[in-house]
Amino acid sequence: SASDESNSSPTAEVSRGAYLPLDTFARRHIGPTSDATEQMLKALDPPVKSLDEFVQQVLPSDILSSKDLEIDAARSGGEEGYTESQLLARLKSIASKNTIARSYIGCGYAGTRVPEVIKRNVLEGPGWYTSYTPYQPEISQGRLESLLNFQTLVSDLTALPISNASLLDEPTAAAEAMTLSLNALPTPRQKNKNKTYFVSHLVHPQTRAVLQSRADGFGIRIEVGDVLADGGKRIKELGSDLVGVLVQYPDTEGGVEDFKGLADIIHEQGATFSVATDLLALTVLTPPGEFGADIAFGNAQRFGVPFGYGGPHAAFFAVSDKHKRKIPGRLIGVSKDRLGDRAMRLALQTREQHIRREKATSNVCTAQALLANMSAFYAIYHGPQGLKNIAERAINGARIIEEGLRTLGFETGSRGKGEDGRVLFDTVVVNVGQGKSDEVLAHALDTYKINLRKFDDSRLGITIDETVDIEDLHDILSIFKKFAKSAKEIKIDQIIASLPGNGTLPIPAALKRTSEYLTHPVFNSHHSETELLRYIHHLQSKDLSLTHSMIPLGSCTMKLNATTEMAPITWPEFSSIHPFAPPDQATGYKMMFDELEADLAKITGFDAVSLQPNSGAQGEFTGLRVIRKYQEQQPGKKRDICLIPVSAHGTNPASAAMAGMRVVTIKCDTKTGNLDIADLKSKCEKYSEELGAIMITYPSTFGVFEPEVKAAIDIVHQHGGQVYMDGANMNAQIGLCSPGEIGADVCHLNLHKTFCIPHGGGGPGVGPIGVKSHLAPFLPGHPLVATGGEKAIAPVSGAPWGSASILPISWSYIKMMGGRGLTHATKITLLNANYIMSRLRPHYPILYTNVNSRCAHEFILDVRGFKETSGIEAIDIAKRLQDYGFHAPTMSWPVANTLMIEPTESESKEELDRFINALISIREEIRAVEEGKAPRENNILKMAPHSQKDLLIGEWDRPYTREQAAYPLPWLKEKKFWPSVTRLDDTYGDMNLFCTCGPVDAVDEV
Amino acid sequence: SASDESNSSPTAEVSRGAYLPLDTFARRHIGPTSDATEQMLKALDPPVKSLDEFVQQVLPSDILSSKDLEIDAARSGGEEGYTESQLLARLKSIASKNTIARSYIGCGYAGTRVPEVIKRNVLEGPGWYTSYTPYQPEISQGRLESLLNFQTLVSDLTALPISNASLLDEPTAAAEAMTLSLNALPTPRQKNKNKTYFVSHLVHPQTRAVLQSRADGFGIRIEVGDVLADGGKRIKELGSDLVGVLVQYPDTEGGVEDFKGLADIIHEQGATFSVATDLLALTVLTPPGEFGADIAFGNAQRFGVPFGYGGPHAAFFAVSDKHKRKIPGRLIGVSKDRLGDRAMRLALQTREQHIRREKATSNVCTAQALLANMSAFYAIYHGPQGLKNIAERAINGARIIEEGLRTLGFETGSRGKGEDGRVLFDTVVVNVGQGKSDEVLAHALDTYKINLRKFDDSRLGITIDETVDIEDLHDILSIFKKFAKSAKEIKIDQIIASLPGNGTLPIPAALKRTSEYLTHPVFNSHHSETELLRYIHHLQSKDLSLTHSMIPLGSCTMKLNATTEMAPITWPEFSSIHPFAPPDQATGYKMMFDELEADLAKITGFDAVSLQPNSGAQGEFTGLRVIRKYQEQQPGKKRDICLIPVSAHGTNPASAAMAGMRVVTIKCDTKTGNLDIADLKSKCEKYSEELGAIMITYPSTFGVFEPEVKAAIDIVHQHGGQVYMDGANMNAQIGLCSPGEIGADVCHLNLHKTFCIPHGGGGPGVGPIGVKSHLAPFLPGHPLVATGGEKAIAPVSGAPWGSASILPISWSYIKMMGGRGLTHATKITLLNANYIMSRLRPHYPILYTNVNSRCAHEFILDVRGFKETSGIEAIDIAKRLQDYGFHAPTMSWPVANTLMIEPTESESKEELDRFINALISIREEIRAVEEGKAPRENNILKMAPHSQKDLLIGEWDRPYTREQAAYPLPWLKEKKFWPSVTRLDDTYGDMNLFCTCGPVDAVDEV
Ligand SMILES: Cc1ncc(COP(=O)(O)O)c(C=O)c1O
Ligand SMILES: Cc1ncc(COP(=O)(O)O)c(C=O)c1O
Ligand SMILES: O=C([O-])O
Repeated sequence: SASDESNSSPTAEVSRGAYLPLDTFARRHIGPTSDATEQMLKALDPPVKSLDEFVQQVLPSDILSSKDLEIDAARSGGEEGYTESQLLARLKSIASKNTIARSYIGCGYAGTRVPEVIKRNVLEGPGWYTSYTPYQPEISQGRLESLLNFQTLVSDLTALPISNASLLDEPTAAAEAMTLSLNALPTPRQKNKNKTYFVSHLVHPQTRAVLQSRADGFGIRIEVGDVLADGGKRIKELGSDLVGVLVQYPDTEGGVEDFKGLADIIHEQGATFSVATDLLALTVLTPPGEFGADIAFGNAQRFGVPFGYGGPHAAFFAVSDKHKRKIPGRLIGVSKDRLGDRAMRLALQTREQHIRREKATSNVCTAQALLANMSAFYAIYHGPQGLKNIAERAINGARIIEEGLRTLGFETGSRGKGEDGRVLFDTVVVNVGQGKSDEVLAHALDTYKINLRKFDDSRLGITIDETVDIEDLHDILSIFKKFAKSAKEIKIDQIIASLPGNGTLPIPAALKRTSEYLTHPVFNSHHSETELLRYIHHLQSKDLSLTHSMIPLGSCTMKLNATTEMAPITWPEFSSIHPFAPPDQATGYKMMFDELEADLAKITGFDAVSLQPNSGAQGEFTGLRVIRKYQEQQPGKKRDICLIPVSAHGTNPASAAMAGMRVVTIKCDTKTGNLDIADLKSKCEKYSEELGAIMITYPSTFGVFEPEVKAAIDIVHQHGGQVYMDGANMNAQIGLCSPGEIGADVCHLNLHKTFCIPHGGGGPGVGPIGVKSHLAPFLPGHPLVATGGEKAIAPVSGAPWGSASILPISWSYIKMMGGRGLTHATKITLLNANYIMSRLRPHYPILYTNVNSRCAHEFILDVRGFKETSGIEAIDIAKRLQDYGFHAPTMSWPVANTLMIEPTESESKEELDRFINALISIREEIRAVEEGKAPRENNILKMAPHSQKDLLIGEWDRPYTREQAAYPLPWLKEKKFWPSVTRLDDTYGDMNLFCTCGPVDAVDEV
Repeated sequence: SASDESNSSPTAEVSRGAYLPLDTFARRHIGPTSDATEQMLKALDPPVKSLDEFVQQVLPSDILSSKDLEIDAARSGGEEGYTESQLLARLKSIASKNTIARSYIGCGYAGTRVPEVIKRNVLEGPGWYTSYTPYQPEISQGRLESLLNFQTLVSDLTALPISNASLLDEPTAAAEAMTLSLNALPTPRQKNKNKTYFVSHLVHPQTRAVLQSRADGFGIRIEVGDVLADGGKRIKELGSDLVGVLVQYPDTEGGVEDFKGLADIIHEQGATFSVATDLLALTVLTPPGEFGADIAFGNAQRFGVPFGYGGPHAAFFAVSDKHKRKIPGRLIGVSKDRLGDRAMRLALQTREQHIRREKATSNVCTAQALLANMSAFYAIYHGPQGLKNIAERAINGARIIEEGLRTLGFETGSRGKGEDGRVLFDTVVVNVGQGKSDEVLAHALDTYKINLRKFDDSRLGITIDETVDIEDLHDILSIFKKFAKSAKEIKIDQIIASLPGNGTLPIPAALKRTSEYLTHPVFNSHHSETELLRYIHHLQSKDLSLTHSMIPLGSCTMKLNATTEMAPITWPEFSSIHPFAPPDQATGYKMMFDELEADLAKITGFDAVSLQPNSGAQGEFTGLRVIRKYQEQQPGKKRDICLIPVSAHGTNPASAAMAGMRVVTIKCDTKTGNLDIADLKSKCEKYSEELGAIMITYPSTFGVFEPEVKAAIDIVHQHGGQVYMDGANMNAQIGLCSPGEIGADVCHLNLHKTFCIPHGGGGPGVGPIGVKSHLAPFLPGHPLVATGGEKAIAPVSGAPWGSASILPISWSYIKMMGGRGLTHATKITLLNANYIMSRLRPHYPILYTNVNSRCAHEFILDVRGFKETSGIEAIDIAKRLQDYGFHAPTMSWPVANTLMIEPTESESKEELDRFINALISIREEIRAVEEGKAPRENNILKMAPHSQKDLLIGEWDRPYTREQAAYPLPWLKEKKFWPSVTRLDDTYGDMNLFCTCGPVDAVDEV
């Protein structure tokens, strides 16, 4: 089998047997060895003889694939994957087909120097990239602090009090701003038929396109125009139809306008003022919060995150105080722990879509934590003055270009310049003469390997970034020299000398930032590499990640993120490409996309794939939009009903609502957890004319392969509905069955679950969708780069292929596993879950299994009964697990007060045994309470988790010992991971919402 | 100044002021900002106005350089260094001049696949590379365990019970084997004039050359010949002249001989039998320990460490039980801690050269810990069966080549083949016909980018390694096809099918390994990437490194190892070059060497530099050999006296002895610590005719710039002596003064101290020497690659440029700092030391300062008095510092029971203050004992360090609280680093010497 040490493969030609490559991957990815697999099969309840027999007990026979999965890969007809070295060699050759040019295109993306210390220790540090969203704050204080730093950075620079911990990208942040604006309206106005979102024509084109895709579902009309024209006349005209206004600052053409007056006009209409902005610019320009903006957002990419051909980068989003409880995405808040010490956590989780379902105002879940952390560290490393230096240098660079172009006889221009008529930020627009744009662009590329932005036939844009050195300025001007009327030599030194102010920036008072920012010590203490290195490692040391132990989060698939998969993402051939670079500079990317799409299509049984959505929830929204577009073209009624089982993940109904669908809930059988087919049938009949889609998760969110899935799908199809499959649980299917074969029409995949993109502490992710051929024409397009179907829906991400630079991870995983390895991984993922379940069954009730007493890749531990017998709840077990060195399973989802366990195939039997023993030991601790040997309060579970301080400071008056608290099992004495704080006080935190670093207290003085 | 945030530079042209690059390096490398510098100058005792005035108080005026240091670098005439991005761009362009070919040269180096998980997490992990030699075992259990794994690996594979924790390279290991053989003889035989070390002619040529360089000093005659000839006749002839015999197994031509009989013959002469071997081969061949070898050693490089153009890699060295207390290098031993728990430590430190001085049998100090760890993890990842698979595949590959060559009509051959006449390991020798070698080599390179080994005009060697795939085998045979008589097509599949045994290896019984190896669980539990990743991180979590806090080890210069310096060493252009590849494939390397040599020459004031020695101690030996060679050519007596001050580092006298010099000690003034000039004078006069050299360290090992250094040097020169300067303290000199200007003739540098090569937990290091022009002709050469002076001494390392692949670190450091940055760093290093000293002076006596009450870059805290007042000794303070999160200063060197503190320029004022406050707090803890408030035993210092287990398990009956033990200062509650064990029991460990992983106990069951 694929996990065998011997590397022997029954299908390999006998004669090659003596000389097979040895650095095969599947056995490194999959935890249990073949010996362990045998032992585990025997230990199952009931035991089983072989892996294949076991699989037949888990999956309904009518969905089992009849053919073997074959991946187009190096060895043995696609069954065996590439070895690790073959993979890297092949990917290097693909990467080398990309062209690394100097891209001064701008349009929301700017070149940046990633400090090497951040690249190595954060982006390339498994301690950072393998952790999960910080749902368990006691073992996540490191990244919580880092994300709080990010929020403080954003809040300080935008001058708005509340910032979230990142969104997916600037255009989706714009969409969130629009939605928030809508929700901020009085309810009657929200229902207004003519409600209009007014967007400046100087907002980036990709943002306008994504807004369009999001506006449809909410029934909002997007109007694009000159918001400042005639003193804001149009805004006044819109009056109560106005949802909000969006401007870009600095704008897409580099202009910087004074919006002070505008805010008042917007607010007079009772609408919300949103500003898409650039954090770097805000070090020198008046921040949005000081000119009346209610919302400011943008892309933090230029803070130390490479282009990556479009992503991932962290978008930021900040709001004024009155919107703080409506802010989308995750919000880190400061609270305190049981000991009263300052501690951070995810705040206001009750707002989250997984609880609010279709009433959620946003479906964002996975965001861009890792990249937000990188940007925060970048700001910490440079500090306020360092950032300002970078901004001023960019402005100087732009002014040098502007002056040089003028000297060469070109007309430059954009609105909102300084008093001296010069640009106020990093972008210059130049007129090269009617019909001349392409010629100049071609010359720039051929002679200088430089990309500029094409606005139209005569206008080009040049955006100066941190990487532009004086030689680059010279090259930029040299491009234009060829087309100049003047024959003057370009002398940068002379141009600099001729600039007024000699390096000081004459910014008009109204636009000049005067307020302080980043005054907190964290931004003023880590400017040497040694200090930053230690700060990064200090934060990392507080966080539990896959470098420590398994993270058995149900529905999250925390598997190995192999180093060979991760290494290529920092190759310059992948990281240095601007998303709007000419497509022929991304030939390698294209090749990799095509192969990945083909592989994912094969794996899922679909005909076409879009890689654009950059999270699972985005995938859902995209899939539903595609379905709606398809249904629109069907004869008959408007099909806008979306059936969703009660057990669905909250993003499902939230996405459906956002796509403008009406959600109808389908019951589940309370005994088996399966879809209530009778209920489904009756709802289908009831809404037969209006039925748009059903959203189902398979295996179900209860962790079982429902036997009737095909029947359910047939019913929906019979009534004209499309079947959307939530692919979060795809890890249980690969090679054994597929959404396409089962009958789904669309499915999203979480590449950050099933396909090894690390979770990054809460992102990045990628949520591609696969579709049957009838839906392929609608796959999302892009305004600037050709992609998607012929009848493409508007884009759902700012970049044509979303988070392109992390796609090599999934590509590599698939290619190295091969069809055989992938299929074996699925079997082991099922085995691992069933092994834990079998061993725990004597100790805990299990909520749902199939008729053969098997679960799928995850299962639910039913701990609800302990509430009565001992007062112990799921949260107490979750927190106590931290004392045993484990991350808790998924808590209270999909069933309140239960624990859902998903081990993945990457965990070895030894690790599973440690985890099982921890849970058995906890069961005994519960029993002690049940039997009155330990009190119902103040017991070892209620007091969990135990931090070092908790055990070491002061007197000890608990009914258990310090040793029991810290070392409940012997191996913990050798390998102990410590929660850095005691249990968090959630209520306190939400009541006293505090989301920036805040005043310096004792803790910060370290 | 260079550390300024503003990046402004007074010398930069004004007009460029508006557009300076911002990613300057010096301010990242240097800890204190300019504000902090001001504060520190004021806080000095006595205070001083400016940094320059301060410097004048530290250095004698007669040695201060009159001119500014200029480095040939990018900006502003060499004063400003490259920025980080400029550096990487320049180095990439240099690197691209190297040619990456497939090198099947063998000769002690074989291609290997570095598992990506090991590369990223160990080689590229600052937690591993920034730690120091594990002198403080309680905060080093991670790397101690890893090195113990290395020792177990070596011991198991060689079947010899005791292995050390690495040596520098295989040839120096051979030299150590020879020395050990000498020392194992009865004393009279050691003095034998005809003593002969008999070396097989089938030992690698570079090993033979290095043996020659080492034999001279010991008066040993090297005889090279056929050791097996006529049943060992020559060995018997040598009789009591025989020191020992050295063979290579498998030999340099790939032959595998049965040496069982030979061992007996050697032992009959009372001599020692040493075997240079290959760990991979020992998975399939009878290990040396089983055929009578007393010593086995070799290069562990092919266990996951890249070529690196020669190094660094770990050499291994194992001995039979009777030699265990004589084994050179560091030895990890298992002992127990205060609680009786198993814990590891450096064993038998009393043997070490820093204690034994000229009686030491070896001078090895820094070795190859980081690379030994990589090799250990490689073995752990593959496990016994995986390693065997790799070995068998290499053999199969060689047999395929052999068979293919025969089919093509070539004669292949070497001694000691299998019964079927085929090769028994990885190397095939082929005869291409008289005078044909070069033509075949050229064709191999031009058409296939393949390097083979040239033995002579007609014979070539091909060594098959782990990276050789079936396509590579095809290419290798294709090279020869062009020169073949036969016109047969090469069909690898057919060749494989035709091999007898079809993939099973018919190894003759006498040569076939039958014993088990690597049976310990550590080698059988981490074969999945997840398990290995966690094991690596678990070990790392136990170790204090520069990622945590300052490591104030006097004489060790633990400064920042910047990521930009580190990144290039894993570029394939540097890591994939075989050391004996044709020089024109290493053009980039050559360029970098030349520039580094030029920069080091400028910095040290010398005329020529050799980069060959791969440690400081090796540099000493090389420098002294160069001096001896020079002196030999001077008229008059044999000048073999070496004057060495009592304060010298122990490697100085050890190296002098090894170079065959007689050591005469010079006194130091007990009040000032300065050289006793009167004593120097009288010794010079006494030995005037025989005076070879003096070795001095400057500033002295007491941390003071001696005022009379020039006078001392003059005296030595007057008497015909050469002046050797130990450059360990070069960090105090750069840009302010230089050994050359002061008058030294030779000096070694520790690039792993002053020039930012990380210490790697005990290596790698590089110890280049600089010399005045009269010594340049003698710089070491190499038998296979042209290097060194015209009258070169024999090589001191196996590779022509020693540890070439880490030289980019120092090159980068120098180029990024520029002359100005380097000089500023020196000033700050002096300031940092004096700041700590000034702040501690009210609390502790300081041992030596100059007349202005200043120290140099380090100083000695005199804690000897506490012994009487409180029973507290230096070790108690050192261990208690661990509780405060700090590594101890250098303990008991150069003065027993004192602490020597060196902060380096990379530490910020904030970190210095934390360290100072810790020492002040410890002083108060001592005072409590002095005042009887705490007992003389069982107090917080004597019980230090405190591990978690110590504080959490069982009852508490100490006169201090757990909180005092763990959190003596408030900030420790936020940032605590824990010793993982309590104080080690040194005596127990040395009495019960145990140096492999050993039987599985509770701890190992984790
Ligand atoms: C079943 C299910 N659907 C959808 C999602 C949303 O995915 P994402 O977080 O990538 O938006 C999740 C996330 O855990 C999930 O478990
Ligand atoms: C003064 C001095 N000389 C020589 C050495 C030996 O250097 P290495 O460990 O590189 O052999 C040291 C090492 O600490 C030292 O401090
Ligand atoms: O909401 C989740 O990320 O599961």
